[in-house]
Amino acid sequence: MTLKRKISVLGSTGSVGVSTLDLLDQAFRHGSAEVEVMALTAGRNVSRLAEQARQWRPAFAVIEDESLLPELRDRLRGSGVEAAAGRAAIVEAAVAGAEWVMAAIVGVAGLEPTHAAARTGAIVALANKESLVCAGPTLLAMAKAAGGAVVPVDSEHAAIFQVLPPAAAERVLRLILTASGGPFRERSMAEMADVTPEQAVAHPNWSMGAKISIDSATMMNKGLEMIEASYLFAMPPERIEVLIHPQSIIHSMVEYQDGSTLAQLGPPDMRAPIACAFAWPDRLPWPAPRLDLAAVGSLTFQAPDVERFPALAIARAALERGCGAPAALNAANETAVAAFLDRRIGFLDIAAAVAKTIERMDRAGELVAGVNGDAVEVAMSVDRTARRVASDVLSSFSRSS
Amino acid sequence: MTLKRKISVLGSTGSVGVSTLDLLDQAFRHGSAEVEVMALTAGRNVSRLAEQARQWRPAFAVIEDESLLPELRDRLRGSGVEAAAGRAAIVEAAVAGAEWVMAAIVGVAGLEPTHAAARTGAIVALANKESLVCAGPTLLAMAKAAGGAVVPVDSEHAAIFQVLPPAAAERVLRLILTASGGPFRERSMAEMADVTPEQAVAHPNWSMGAKISIDSATMMNKGLEMIEASYLFAMPPERIEVLIHPQSIIHSMVEYQDGSTLAQLGPPDMRAPIACAFAWPDRLPWPAPRLDLAAVGSLTFQAPDVERFPALAIARAALERGCGAPAALNAANETAVAAFLDRRIGFLDIAAAVAKTIERMDRAGELVAGVNGDAVEVAMSVDRTARRVASDVLSSFSRSS
Repeated sequence: MTLKRKISVLGSTGSVGVSTLDLLDQAFRHGSAEVEVMALTAGRNVSRLAEQARQWRPAFAVIEDESLLPELRDRLRGSGVEAAAGRAAIVEAAVAGAEWVMAAIVGVAGLEPTHAAARTGAIVALANKESLVCAGPTLLAMAKAAGGAVVPVDSEHAAIFQVLPPAAAERVLRLILTASGGPFRERSMAEMADVTPEQAVAHPNWSMGAKISIDSATMMNKGLEMIEASYLFAMPPERIEVLIHPQSIIHSMVEYQDGSTLAQLGPPDMRAPIACAFAWPDRLPWPAPRLDLAAVGSLTFQAPDVERFPALAIARAALERGCGAPAALNAANETAVAAFLDRRIGFLDIAAAVAKTIERMDRAGELVAGVNGDAVEVAMSVDRTARRVASDVLSSFSRSS
Repeated sequence: MTLKRKISVLGSTGSVGVSTLDLLDQAFRHGSAEVEVMALTAGRNVSRLAEQARQWRPAFAVIEDESLLPELRDRLRGSGVEAAAGRAAIVEAAVAGAEWVMAAIVGVAGLEPTHAAARTGAIVALANKESLVCAGPTLLAMAKAAGGAVVPVDSEHAAIFQVLPPAAAERVLRLILTASGGPFRERSMAEMADVTPEQAVAHPNWSMGAKISIDSATMMNKGLEMIEASYLFAMPPERIEVLIHPQSIIHSMVEYQDGSTLAQLGPPDMRAPIACAFAWPDRLPWPAPRLDLAAVGSLTFQAPDVERFPALAIARAALERGCGAPAALNAANETAVAAFLDRRIGFLDIAAAVAKTIERMDRAGELVAGVNGDAVEVAMSVDRTARRVASDVLSSFSRSS
């Protein structure tokens, strides 16, 4: 049986977008999927976008950076694909009639188009973390009201999604998010104080961008995932735990109140959770990399060290604090990571700056969401404030170090 | 929410029966389950049966050994529980109006009562391996026709059952049955040739009876489970694999065609799969032992050595052969294990005797099921023949060793 879908890919030139199209290409050759692409969007990678558009023939292709529109038009000449540019056109692409929308724009820029896609009642395959972290409950409620759904693509949440039918939610004891532990799993605080950006971006299991690699090294990624999991699966913070599992084979688990723990496993490959989100509630046959546990030999586990990785506790506190705290956490973290990559602050300063930013905003009453404006606007406003406060906090850090 | 069920436990004094009642007792104290016991049955353990009956107050208690009826009556005097004895009474107990029947009688003696329970449309929690191995397709068809279901209690099948919704069956790549590998996992053939019954019954992870411990040491248990899995989940033999996992924490897995592998994990405790079968499709909260993977530290895996453990290949061949071959395998194995426990044959002779028995029966046309008689009768007849042929095969083994 061939699965047919009208789809759009928002953020098609990033790693998740590229993996999505690669998967769909393979599934098509395998005879298991046939897609009609409504829209593809990218930030600035105009050559890649044009290449993808020539292969997939969407109704339209959108580049966010408006200065690149002439080049995109040029590259698409004769293809029959309409070219467009700018943020409004990306939101338009999100609502272009797809039944399935891959929301893979990176950062808060993804908030508006992701929420727009959810409002259409489409199945939203969610790779944009900010949509959940900064305005998760609203996103989920909107999708539900529109008759659609949000299906996670992050490997951890996709794992939980596969072993947690909604009806079983009240029988959950805890969600167990696995974490590779990053490159500094075994480092002491003193050793971590001196690490360079180059050392921090070298992730042992997944090939990722610099920002996300640093998040893995600080374990802030796991903190953000904890927030996402809490919203996605309607679980209170105290029911979500993190477990270090360096091999990244078990992608997460659900422990039930009856003594059973269910888990999803697989080789670390982004296309597997994308396949799952694409076919849900069915499954998509494709020539997936096989898991060979006998060859892997051993899966190991240890409790996370919250002393050495304070980001976990900071994220948990932000989740418990609620209101704009998760959005502030995300923005402050992005700002701090950029400063670290820029060598303006040390590695351990990242978490410290995030904590300080949230604390300062809380004291100033800047975490409390305004009563006016929709969730996306409120989140964007908290985001802007957090970046400003974080920059201020960071400048004091830089001066002192 | 308290789960209420009318139940019967067939084989209540064996390890699965005792675990069932212990679980239900704990769930009752926990406020999550309330059962009305219709019938309890046992083989010969009259004191235990009477004790259970005084606690649970079933409508009736049945002892298989008729000579023990006077003692049972005596022990139940004044309790209001009716005492009965004999095989017919056990079948009567199986159809005594329970919505949920734990089928935990050991051996082919469990065939008839288990099939009878399935015919009532009850949920049959299946611990009696023979019901599946010797007449699985009939059992499942009967349960389905009656509007009931067969829910496995064996930890491996219960694991698969939890991560394989029926609709997903056609998307399965393979079922992966995990195996502890038994006490002789690392032994050479030469070392295994000399092992004693005492060495063979010492199982590293599960506390079990002698027969089942020997099956674990030869890995014939995994061969039988492969047959059960094939029937239970309608999977051809080539889609079922065995993986050695000495810690017995991952109880089995399902690998799907989309690259996802789902697994069920837990501390080795029989009550967890029983809880799952009891509450299915809900889950039963009870004070279950918790899985602490950080404390476990490491899960290891290796491919099974089919040279050293020929039982796996013999069972697979019997499954592929079909007809009475699985029933013959089971009966020949029981006969051979008894001979080994009796020190009449060596450890390695067990699998050899089983293979030889099936081969001889096949040549004599004794594996082909008769066209008359129901599946249970046919299976019982193959069983008797196999025991006779196996005894004959074994006597030649004994003479030569």
